[in-house]
Amino acid sequence: MSSVGDVQPQSMHFAAPLPLASGSVLRDYTLAYETYGTLNASRSNAVLVCHALNASHHVAGTYAGQAKSEGWWDNLVGPGKPLDTDRFFVIGVNNPGSCFGSTGPASPNPDPAANGRAYGSDFPVVTVEDWVDAQARLVDALGIERLAAVLGGSLGGMQALAWSLRYPERLRQCVAVATAPNLSAQNIAFNEVARRAIVTDPDFHGGHYAEHGVVPKRGLTVARMIGHITYLSDDSMEAKFGRGMQGTAPRFGYSTQEIEFQIEAYLRHQGDKFSEYFDANTYLLITRALDYFDPAAAHGGDLTATFAAARCRYELVSFTTDWRFAPARSREIVKALVDNRRDVSYAEIDAPHGHDAFLLDDPRYHGVMRACFANLAKELA
Amino acid sequence: MSSVGDVQPQSMHFAAPLPLASGSVLRDYTLAYETYGTLNASRSNAVLVCHALNASHHVAGTYAGQAKSEGWWDNLVGPGKPLDTDRFFVIGVNNPGSCFGSTGPASPNPDPAANGRAYGSDFPVVTVEDWVDAQARLVDALGIERLAAVLGGSLGGMQALAWSLRYPERLRQCVAVATAPNLSAQNIAFNEVARRAIVTDPDFHGGHYAEHGVVPKRGLTVARMIGHITYLSDDSMEAKFGRGMQGTAPRFGYSTQEIEFQIEAYLRHQGDKFSEYFDANTYLLITRALDYFDPAAAHGGDLTATFAAARCRYELVSFTTDWRFAPARSREIVKALVDNRRDVSYAEIDAPHGHDAFLLDDPRYHGVMRACFANLAKELA
Repeated sequence: MSSVGDVQPQSMHFAAPLPLASGSVLRDYTLAYETYGTLNASRSNAVLVCHALNASHHVAGTYAGQAKSEGWWDNLVGPGKPLDTDRFFVIGVNNPGSCFGSTGPASPNPDPAANGRAYGSDFPVVTVEDWVDAQARLVDALGIERLAAVLGGSLGGMQALAWSLRYPERLRQCVAVATAPNLSAQNIAFNEVARRAIVTDPDFHGGHYAEHGVVPKRGLTVARMIGHITYLSDDSMEAKFGRGMQGTAPRFGYSTQEIEFQIEAYLRHQGDKFSEYFDANTYLLITRALDYFDPAAAHGGDLTATFAAARCRYELVSFTTDWRFAPARSREIVKALVDNRRDVSYAEIDAPHGHDAFLLDDPRYHGVMRACFANLAKELA
Repeated sequence: MSSVGDVQPQSMHFAAPLPLASGSVLRDYTLAYETYGTLNASRSNAVLVCHALNASHHVAGTYAGQAKSEGWWDNLVGPGKPLDTDRFFVIGVNNPGSCFGSTGPASPNPDPAANGRAYGSDFPVVTVEDWVDAQARLVDALGIERLAAVLGGSLGGMQALAWSLRYPERLRQCVAVATAPNLSAQNIAFNEVARRAIVTDPDFHGGHYAEHGVVPKRGLTVARMIGHITYLSDDSMEAKFGRGMQGTAPRFGYSTQEIEFQIEAYLRHQGDKFSEYFDANTYLLITRALDYFDPAAAHGGDLTATFAAARCRYELVSFTTDWRFAPARSREIVKALVDNRRDVSYAEIDAPHGHDAFLLDDPRYHGVMRACFANLAKELA
């Protein structure tokens, strides 16, 4: 196993407006993407990787001269890795509304009334299905009629599911990891608290903070801290930090504002780091896309009726300690697929890391992924 | 069963400074308290009720002329109720550092340098053990040598446990509901996010917001929203709100800032309401007291060694869906007591309401409480 090595981000411009679920449109837009491996002559070996909340098109490899620039799923994607770039042509794409190169809230608003200012909070609300439509246009432009697979974890898994329902003939395999058919009330609640933290930050300025030369860092920091708690399992947090203190004696500092416990230092660091690079309007948009995702809503909540449209093969994976999208949520999807006599494989991985497990290289998990893609590769040979 | 009826809050002033765990002292201070029922001739029937994060000395009864002024444990405490005020003399006390009448951050700082201004964030950091010491002085002043019981839920349960370790001969029975021997890393993490939300609110002014004529409402709102999620079970939130929307069609508003889901409206309402009456410095102090509570720390983390000092009888209760202080945390305490051959009774109640269950009148839970206090009453007779 080795890395795909140094990679170059690319971008593609789309002149035709993208109709959105809201009834609005996204005018001409750009998508940032990367590819790894080689598209075969029959153009049958392409795998699209969809990103979750805070990731991007930079799935694998490194950027020349940039230390620690590995892609977010570099442990999974590369030569000889479970998603083997010696066999597959892998596409990573940044979704519209994000903040890593594709058109998003920080891009200039093409509306003449905006006088060239950034969209800010006027960026149209985008849904998982809108992203899938935008991705399909990129896949078209790359000359790919049918994808070997669409793969994603968490919110990325929702995009993989949406592909299988919206373009059922355009993929052989859907790989949806650590995901859910929709958000629970508790999931929405955590999103809402994060949004409140951002929106009530005085530096938010109704989403037009760029015009004021500020960013709502405090709100973003708190939002990320909340999110981060939900990505980890109670057990893994306990194993990693427990009640460990920063520094040495005296044991307690008897302060309400200083960092004393290691878990506090860790969370603040995560929050601060995130607030340096992530866009607040993007955070709002992406959490709303999560809230809205609910393919069964158009079928009266009946997930079995929803997946009657499915045609591809499915691989679903969940992790026992994931309390954000618990195994029971994946099992709902599996049941709907079995009800429809679809070809579905499901692995419930006994991993301690909570929701974050989908990004880690647990050997059982990666074994499942390796087997899934090896089978797929045989079919294409 | 009936209510204790209209009650009057009382207060008692203590002129002697209270030495604190931090090494600091609380100079002269006042405690707000209430009592229900009658102290018997042998002064043996007193039960002290300790409050959790956002409650007070107003445990039971109503305030004359005030609608919806029932005490926070009115369903448990009253004539004929599980903690029967026809048999017991019940004391509710507001802890120092709180914001409901006892000396706290909003009280004038007696330090001459403060020129009569409020303590604000200069209020000394108080611990669970400090509260217990303050309560013991009130119990002394009421002429009670030995309490029939000390009772509390959540953080109140920690105080009941601390009583049993700090003043083992001064209570017959410890009743600790929905509590834990210390906070987990995840518990501390949620507290820390809440504190960050408060402390980074520009209206916090380093904790001296009173001098600026403002309160950090935004931070307090977010803090309460986070806390509230952890009080409810995933299932009860799902049952109560699910993915239900506010208002009517069109189904989605495609807004990132407006309330759309019922759970959002509920949380914002809870947060806003809380920020109207709760003091931000108190929130910081009380969450820190939670973080610090860890009686086993003085025994190398050995809970069995810790409870070797125990003398009273124990009743522990937990709730199956409480993910804040899960049943496993109560079982740790039970094990330590059994190891010490203490007299302990433990009930794990199959209730759907999460941590909040300790405030509700689930019949099985109240049955356990009724039996516990009925046994205790017999012993006093």
